[in-house]
Amino acid sequence: MAQTFPNISDPSELKDYSVAELESLAALCRQEIMRTVSHTGGHLASNLGVVELTLALARTFDFGPERDRLIFDVGHQSYTWKLITGRSGEFYSLRQQGGLSGFPKRSESPYDFYDAGHSSTAASIALGCQRADRLNGVQRQNVVVLGDGALTGGMAFEALNDAGQSQDPIKVILNDNQMSIDHNVGALARHLEKIRISNSYLGLKKQVKNSLDNGSGAAARVKDFLTDFKQNLRLRLHKESIFFEALGFRYYGPVDGHNIPDLLASLRAVQLSDKPTILHVITKKGQGYSPAEEEPSRFHGVAPFFLDAKTQQSKQSNGRKTFSNYVSDFLVDAASRDEQVCAITAAMAQGTGLADFEIKFPERFFDTGITEQHAVSLGAGLSLAGKKVFVALYSTFSQRAVDQILHDVCLENLPVCFLLDRAGEVGADGETHQGLYDISIFSSFPNLQLFAPADGRDLELLIEEALKTNIPMMIRYPKAKTEYDLGINNRNLRTLRLMRPGREIAIIAYGVMADSALQAAEILEKNNHSVAVYSLITGNNIQVNDKIEELCSYQHVSIVEDGIRTGGVAENLALKLCEQGLKVPLLHTVQNGLRGQATREELLKEEGLDPEGIASTILASLN
Amino acid sequence: MAQTFPNISDPSELKDYSVAELESLAALCRQEIMRTVSHTGGHLASNLGVVELTLALARTFDFGPERDRLIFDVGHQSYTWKLITGRSGEFYSLRQQGGLSGFPKRSESPYDFYDAGHSSTAASIALGCQRADRLNGVQRQNVVVLGDGALTGGMAFEALNDAGQSQDPIKVILNDNQMSIDHNVGALARHLEKIRISNSYLGLKKQVKNSLDNGSGAAARVKDFLTDFKQNLRLRLHKESIFFEALGFRYYGPVDGHNIPDLLASLRAVQLSDKPTILHVITKKGQGYSPAEEEPSRFHGVAPFFLDAKTQQSKQSNGRKTFSNYVSDFLVDAASRDEQVCAITAAMAQGTGLADFEIKFPERFFDTGITEQHAVSLGAGLSLAGKKVFVALYSTFSQRAVDQILHDVCLENLPVCFLLDRAGEVGADGETHQGLYDISIFSSFPNLQLFAPADGRDLELLIEEALKTNIPMMIRYPKAKTEYDLGINNRNLRTLRLMRPGREIAIIAYGVMADSALQAAEILEKNNHSVAVYSLITGNNIQVNDKIEELCSYQHVSIVEDGIRTGGVAENLALKLCEQGLKVPLLHTVQNGLRGQATREELLKEEGLDPEGIASTILASLN
Repeated sequence: MAQTFPNISDPSELKDYSVAELESLAALCRQEIMRTVSHTGGHLASNLGVVELTLALARTFDFGPERDRLIFDVGHQSYTWKLITGRSGEFYSLRQQGGLSGFPKRSESPYDFYDAGHSSTAASIALGCQRADRLNGVQRQNVVVLGDGALTGGMAFEALNDAGQSQDPIKVILNDNQMSIDHNVGALARHLEKIRISNSYLGLKKQVKNSLDNGSGAAARVKDFLTDFKQNLRLRLHKESIFFEALGFRYYGPVDGHNIPDLLASLRAVQLSDKPTILHVITKKGQGYSPAEEEPSRFHGVAPFFLDAKTQQSKQSNGRKTFSNYVSDFLVDAASRDEQVCAITAAMAQGTGLADFEIKFPERFFDTGITEQHAVSLGAGLSLAGKKVFVALYSTFSQRAVDQILHDVCLENLPVCFLLDRAGEVGADGETHQGLYDISIFSSFPNLQLFAPADGRDLELLIEEALKTNIPMMIRYPKAKTEYDLGINNRNLRTLRLMRPGREIAIIAYGVMADSALQAAEILEKNNHSVAVYSLITGNNIQVNDKIEELCSYQHVSIVEDGIRTGGVAENLALKLCEQGLKVPLLHTVQNGLRGQATREELLKEEGLDPEGIASTILASLN
Repeated sequence: MAQTFPNISDPSELKDYSVAELESLAALCRQEIMRTVSHTGGHLASNLGVVELTLALARTFDFGPERDRLIFDVGHQSYTWKLITGRSGEFYSLRQQGGLSGFPKRSESPYDFYDAGHSSTAASIALGCQRADRLNGVQRQNVVVLGDGALTGGMAFEALNDAGQSQDPIKVILNDNQMSIDHNVGALARHLEKIRISNSYLGLKKQVKNSLDNGSGAAARVKDFLTDFKQNLRLRLHKESIFFEALGFRYYGPVDGHNIPDLLASLRAVQLSDKPTILHVITKKGQGYSPAEEEPSRFHGVAPFFLDAKTQQSKQSNGRKTFSNYVSDFLVDAASRDEQVCAITAAMAQGTGLADFEIKFPERFFDTGITEQHAVSLGAGLSLAGKKVFVALYSTFSQRAVDQILHDVCLENLPVCFLLDRAGEVGADGETHQGLYDISIFSSFPNLQLFAPADGRDLELLIEEALKTNIPMMIRYPKAKTEYDLGINNRNLRTLRLMRPGREIAIIAYGVMADSALQAAEILEKNNHSVAVYSLITGNNIQVNDKIEELCSYQHVSIVEDGIRTGGVAENLALKLCEQGLKVPLLHTVQNGLRGQATREELLKEEGLDPEGIASTILASLN
């Protein structure tokens, strides 16, 4: 168990490895990944699934700076790659502040060719590189590892369609683990399944046929039948591959993604191909760790779970509920009262708290796969035909559907309600996953009303509001726990709500920042300042005229927001207050969207958005 | 020629029409469309292509309020539909302020089921409607008219993949006119072409075979050969349709989209299908108007051209150059000096002024089809591998690639330069095409530097800057003409540039608004006010500290911007100035993003952004 991980600084060091040595290395990688992720959290199942594939790729191609490029789609499956490119020594620091990123990062290593985080982009990137290489007269292979889930994203289709036309020979390894993050969706998934079934059947037949080869009579008839059957299946298999061939790709596979010799043979063919080529690899998410094999969705992105040697059960603390938990409760409740309620997500049923909704109302639940664009416009269609639609997305992935939110929902003024989970500082996934931009992106959209609940009760009221309203709504909240009731007496959704009286200083807190503002007020009170705290949950079209006189009575006004400064709520409100004669408030917002992985708390602290930071910024400005 | 168009208020009135009567009506529609568009401008070629198809659809299905739904993808091909749903009397007002929209509009007619404008959304909308109907226990057919160009958009693929999986029986009419807007791209297009060729070959063979049927000897051998060939082609044709079958769709076609009896027969089969079904219809863009048939790209979206009976040549006035013209000149110049320069567009080579670039540097030009997402990330890939990349998009379509701009370019800090044409108020295409949101969407993105040139010389300098910079840039400009040099002496790209000295009032004009600000100053001068005009072309990270003292010397400061107010440059700059002690400036911006079709000039006037409007707002605020 305690074998040390070898120090591999360049993948070319694997060129001398025998298959047996590669298999031993795979076991070590798997052990290292499990040990580390159990402490750091991370994408466990997907990384366990691509260990052999990554090693076989490294053995076959010549990846490295100024050599071949390996581009991981999404990038969360690159742990083995990190282990064999000189980073095994720091692997313990995975996803920690100042440590290794959970995704490829060019700033981290010259062996990371592209900073990924979102799905379905890699084929475009590789095609761009391939064309540039061609124009530059350089021979480099550009290899993409693309999941079957990412293939449901239309952007991947756009790229394959383009590469198939130009015949630039990018190499796409289709890592088919039969699921995106939650479970697989879409007709293409079924199509891939047919290929898998056909092939495993072919394998089975081969064995049966061999055992019958010496028979006669009944055995011979069975053999003939099986031979015919096999021909039919081969024809079928051939037809299935036409899908990719119609896109202009050469198709190889499927191949068992945990069988290193098979992988090496197939990859060699891919390497030699001078056409755009797809290799269909069947892998198993969570391979080698039985809880993750059985429930890969639960082990997609996991918090630290500290492997218990006896039970391998994960231990987690309990406490206040997350906003996603509240969404789960309130949406299920709404749907049980109102049969028009429908919910949509784009491969994030678990993450957005819709798993319960799916179980209780499968007819009214739609998981479209990693297809935020389609998910939003599907919601527009449902709404158009009379449904009350909730579309639950992560804030960072809502960036994929900006035009659909504007063109198909807001311009149409359809009462679709967007639930943006993971808004604000997100944490360990790093800068690609931050939910910092939603307010500035969406606040100018016609008809759309933005909200950010301060606590569970606000969220409940906002979902009630969404059931009644006739305009589009967007509700953003972080991946964080909160009280059901922070002690807000005035639950008006559109004005400033006094949470804590004071005389000298007023802090206006947007959404979830109410809690930190209350704590900051306590700190300031200890420094002998009398501090009022207001909660604001409307993100645009803010009405403050009735509060101007009250606000003018304070010597100092602060606005706190966990979003990017430019175009955010704080800037918008500040200008409104200035127009009404108030002096310019102090803004506490996120100013740097480029911070790497850390916990949400660490990131908020770095931006001065923790209670101590808010208090000390105010104190400094008073002097 | 002068036959009056019949008054058809509901498509069901066509149920009694004979084929001959439908053909006569088609001729009348075509005449009406040509006559009107020659005066109003509009989408000529695409509308001439779908006349018979629209009539055959109306004859087959039961479209109307609470009945079947007809959902046009993009929607610019709905003119015939408007003519047969009670709007022939107002058709003269097409695309005029207060008149008929050039796109379906629910507010215009209960026969318009969805407000479209952007591509590739309709299958999602139809699927949403179909599912809601199913849940509601309602029997309605949801029919989509989808162009082959729109099919290259990944979002359409996402929707087909989802419908194929759930088997909700939406009906997709694939209007295959062998081009998107410019010309067709992508492997799928080639795939469709194969189907077309096979089929027309089959038709030809049938004729030849008939003439040989009585022959012997050589004739018989030819006949046998042709029969074999035909079998092969049939097999091939069958294979091709597997692409759609792999997506879970039933496939019919191809059928001649200008042959009404064939259309009626095929549509009847589609109507009766209880599965998701695609009918592949071959149409000819511009059918019936030879200049548009020959050059459909030029007649895609046309300005009024006043049909000249003799030559059918269009007449257009000349004048100052458009920003797109300048882009054309400067990019070609840059590419001829620097062989690393590459250009990308998403089906808008003509519109964005890249047509010349394509002719001169075909190797370095990439038109990806209607695929803004892929276009941007392809640019990221090219940039990553050392190219200097310009991605030219319409502002409104850049909304389709927000996440790619953030995730694949800005977070990576790649020096890709985005050229956003049609920024600001756009005009006759209505609210779906307005370029009002780019500043508020993109201004918070890390590393990205926004610009808006005041004149041609600014644009030239910005393109030079893009060649040298190592960060992402975005340059926005309207569909409008401008001088090469408006008389700006200080060409600093990052600070306020004094264009016109004055003492009492300062107007700061963002980008193209400099010209109007100068004219407003003239008007104010006539009212005995001394007015300074500053030009600003940086859209974010604006540095004004060195100008604060100067600006404080005016009694009044205005900021003028042709973008949406919330999150725009004016708000951002205003707060910056307030923070430096200036009193709140007057903001002249677009406040209503929901104005329908009109000219750009009319829209600017409605928002008070014409010279008279700017001047009178300032005068009113002085009193």
